[in-house]
Amino acid sequence: MSRPFDLPAYLAAEAAPVQAALERAMDWIAAGVLGDVAGAVRHGVLSDGKRLRPILCVTAYRACGGVPTAAAYDLSASLELVHAYSLMHDDLPCMDDAELRRGRPTTHKVHGEDVTTRAGAALIPAAALQAWRAAEALGCPPDVVRAVVARLLEAAGAGGMVGGQWLDLEGEGRALSPQALDEIHRRKTGALLAASLLVGATAARAPGATLEALERYGRAVGLAFQIADDILDATEGAETLGKNPSDAALAKSTYVALYGLGEARRLAQAQIAEALSALGASGLDAPALSALARFVVERKH
Amino acid sequence: MSRPFDLPAYLAAEAAPVQAALERAMDWIAAGVLGDVAGAVRHGVLSDGKRLRPILCVTAYRACGGVPTAAAYDLSASLELVHAYSLMHDDLPCMDDAELRRGRPTTHKVHGEDVTTRAGAALIPAAALQAWRAAEALGCPPDVVRAVVARLLEAAGAGGMVGGQWLDLEGEGRALSPQALDEIHRRKTGALLAASLLVGATAARAPGATLEALERYGRAVGLAFQIADDILDATEGAETLGKNPSDAALAKSTYVALYGLGEARRLAQAQIAEALSALGASGLDAPALSALARFVVERKH
Repeated sequence: MSRPFDLPAYLAAEAAPVQAALERAMDWIAAGVLGDVAGAVRHGVLSDGKRLRPILCVTAYRACGGVPTAAAYDLSASLELVHAYSLMHDDLPCMDDAELRRGRPTTHKVHGEDVTTRAGAALIPAAALQAWRAAEALGCPPDVVRAVVARLLEAAGAGGMVGGQWLDLEGEGRALSPQALDEIHRRKTGALLAASLLVGATAARAPGATLEALERYGRAVGLAFQIADDILDATEGAETLGKNPSDAALAKSTYVALYGLGEARRLAQAQIAEALSALGASGLDAPALSALARFVVERKH
Repeated sequence: MSRPFDLPAYLAAEAAPVQAALERAMDWIAAGVLGDVAGAVRHGVLSDGKRLRPILCVTAYRACGGVPTAAAYDLSASLELVHAYSLMHDDLPCMDDAELRRGRPTTHKVHGEDVTTRAGAALIPAAALQAWRAAEALGCPPDVVRAVVARLLEAAGAGGMVGGQWLDLEGEGRALSPQALDEIHRRKTGALLAASLLVGATAARAPGATLEALERYGRAVGLAFQIADDILDATEGAETLGKNPSDAALAKSTYVALYGLGEARRLAQAQIAEALSALGASGLDAPALSALARFVVERKH
């Protein structure tokens, strides 16, 4: 019998090089900026997040045969830059109007709405340049660099995250169908989680079939992640979450509202089963990815 | 004696293929988006603008030996996408809070603040992908494609436009030094105007010395453009401008406030002289660029 994979130890070991890569990214991004935009970028990026996207990126890179160097962590940081942009804009007064994020005041509460809008938008080109430089530093040939950066841009763009964000806004105040709710989260969370895996796997030059399996895995994990978020929002307070459980206040449709707690939990487990099945189909030996899939629905915040 | 260059005829001839390229861009960008974000993107991009940036791009491409095809206009459209994003965000309530732009209601007045913030941000990755595909369609080798897209991303990012936008916000309500005012506009307007020329020239594989001269030209024209804007704001009403002359209301430092009308006019002319000198140094035979430099200070809106 194999020993179970020690995910907490794995996450703890990955945290330091990811954080170091984010600090390096801040150095070059902040160097070109002035004053308060740089402060807002640092506030948004260097928070106490789970770093799920960079860790998925590096884990996929390793599972596909890559040996993670500093450049691989630099590549993974590009995903967190896009994620940070999306949170900074999500929290704005004209969006979710959130005051707390990861236990701290949101970026616009500290740096203002105008500066935060600018800083968030500035992270998009910065993330693309970050991925580009890192992929080149990893020795990727031009067509692989192109594929890596295009994945990131597509996930960050209108067909990916932004499409889902719009659907999310659109759905406030009215009941969504199960299909519409899936579509929101497939785009809003799933696109960037899948891109995290695909950026890592593409940089490690994984074959097409592996990329397809990882995309399936990523989209299922993304949906499970969002259902788990809805469950946490419904069952925990702001103190545990480190943020305001705001979806109910905004009358957003959630999986819990739509299906009830028990069925939402079953749906999350079904997505995890789908993720593990995709992982099996990939042929990758990646115990960290199996453990991460389970982690997203078992986490406490 | 050579016949003077007919700029109005040139601009009129360029308008149609630029507009067609923007429509093509909307087709693929809107195809990936849903509902109101697509509407906001179309509102922001397909306005009755001067299309100065795409025209500079195509003009530089032609001056450097390129023969403009549909792909060259597609490349030029990427600059207008970035410009449209910057205007959509500039006009937001948390920024300049503008109600009119080019004689029409601003995007957030029609589509709301949340959707406009999303749509503006979505244009950044879309612009990069647009430039990428167009440069490839033009047959640029990977290193040239890289240089083209990197120029665009750098101009759109924290070191370019966003840095200038921050300085601009920072300067509201207090007097700026002449140096600080130049720095704002060098970044806010100059970076994207220079990038427009450099994207076109790079795609046409211009040598380094030509790129340097065009960058000098672009930055001087950008500064002249901004001084001319301040002069127009000070001397024309909303009806002529098609927008609210808002800088005075926001107590922003302007060239007119800092130097007076006469001296501001002299400064603009000095920048045009610098632009023409740079053009001379470039060795390019580009009467359209000479005429465009003069046009930016002589325009009426």
